[in-house]
Amino acid sequence: MEQTEILYQYLLHLGDNSLIQGQRDGEWCGHGPVLEQDIALTNIALDLFGEARNIFAAAARLKGNGETEDSIAFLRDVLQYKNVLLVEQPNQDWAYTIVKHFFYDNFHNILMTELCNSNNADIKAIAQKSVKETNYHARWSNEWMIRLGDGTAVSKEKVQTALNELWEYSGEFFIATSIETQAEQLGFGANLETIHKAWTKTIDEILLEATLEKPSSTFFQKGGKTGIHSEYLGFVLAEMQYLQRAYPGAEW
Amino acid sequence: MEQTEILYQYLLHLGDNSLIQGQRDGEWCGHGPVLEQDIALTNIALDLFGEARNIFAAAARLKGNGETEDSIAFLRDVLQYKNVLLVEQPNQDWAYTIVKHFFYDNFHNILMTELCNSNNADIKAIAQKSVKETNYHARWSNEWMIRLGDGTAVSKEKVQTALNELWEYSGEFFIATSIETQAEQLGFGANLETIHKAWTKTIDEILLEATLEKPSSTFFQKGGKTGIHSEYLGFVLAEMQYLQRAYPGAEW
Repeated sequence: MEQTEILYQYLLHLGDNSLIQGQRDGEWCGHGPVLEQDIALTNIALDLFGEARNIFAAAARLKGNGETEDSIAFLRDVLQYKNVLLVEQPNQDWAYTIVKHFFYDNFHNILMTELCNSNNADIKAIAQKSVKETNYHARWSNEWMIRLGDGTAVSKEKVQTALNELWEYSGEFFIATSIETQAEQLGFGANLETIHKAWTKTIDEILLEATLEKPSSTFFQKGGKTGIHSEYLGFVLAEMQYLQRAYPGAEW
Repeated sequence: MEQTEILYQYLLHLGDNSLIQGQRDGEWCGHGPVLEQDIALTNIALDLFGEARNIFAAAARLKGNGETEDSIAFLRDVLQYKNVLLVEQPNQDWAYTIVKHFFYDNFHNILMTELCNSNNADIKAIAQKSVKETNYHARWSNEWMIRLGDGTAVSKEKVQTALNELWEYSGEFFIATSIETQAEQLGFGANLETIHKAWTKTIDEILLEATLEKPSSTFFQKGGKTGIHSEYLGFVLAEMQYLQRAYPGAEW
């Protein structure tokens, strides 16, 4: 695979994680029950959409074949989305939403820190902008984990359940695809082992402070990064793509 | 009615318009088809939720009976919501969404400008913060009206249709309720005739530039401001209140 195609595929993978995570966050927009947190989560969704938009714009420039940030975001088929399975999982309740964020935000934050050293100017610029936001996201979800874990008996039970059930989706970040391996070798990607170590350290610290038990299973789901998704992504995309497909090429 | 109760009711009316308009905007969050506008509309929703939150917090302080900004936002029955009928109308398509915004943003912007002179410190502070945002909202929707009206044949037809159908909801702002009349007399509200004149001037200018025809009907729907709503509000609230009602008093 030529280098441009590797870069393109790598960008899609980066952008899709934030797009789908942002999409799930958007489902909370205006759905309460606490206005302050509704607003916080919608702000995070906006950061993620903004990042995805910049990444897809960079990908579109790379191809120069008429693709746009919007056609990339909205007009692919499900197999062409490269997000990890974690971010397409349903929100279920607040505890699930927070655990998904906890896993993703810490990964995303460390990844963006690493990508500030990318040899690709687009990735570097995007990472430098994102890292300010992902720092805040990670702090927000770490604080929520502690608040729920070290909170009431009910909140502790809910968040421990979510942690146990979502744990198997926390490993896919670190199982390198051939695109990620090549991206690292070519100097524009990041080393996933480095990220894994830093991620584990943070996760362990926060779970300890939150008085939560870290699941011990070492079996992890994978597939999303190579386009093999759970049925959930189909529903997310159906809702997301509805308008673009109903009014193809709408210029408004 | 004593003055505190008039102020309380006036605050609810102000907050409900922004809450429900923001709620309808939130429905677009992540629903494309253009990422940039998705992001713009979600940002506007956030401004509106932020304003509603400040207003409801002021209302809750006034009563001091255990109500909170969240209980006011999420736990009232449909008859207690005092928003105008316009903001609860469905989004339908992009043209409808823009026309609803066009009517509301210009009203909201002029109202907040007037309320910067309120003799109530809370209302004054909220208005001074809001007016920076509503200025931007009005500019955004005015530009969209021109872009759609003076755009393609299809966009012009869609926006003219939306304008014709929503016109009857554009007059309720200016039909004063007894609460609004008393609020003005007591010095914390605004004069609706002054606002109506300024609003008409702006609407006329923008419609001219957009090459759109202003509907001539002088029949206007009303009722929302006194709690008589269309069936649509019930659906909006059902979705909005679901979580708060499913987990009453959830402290997470």
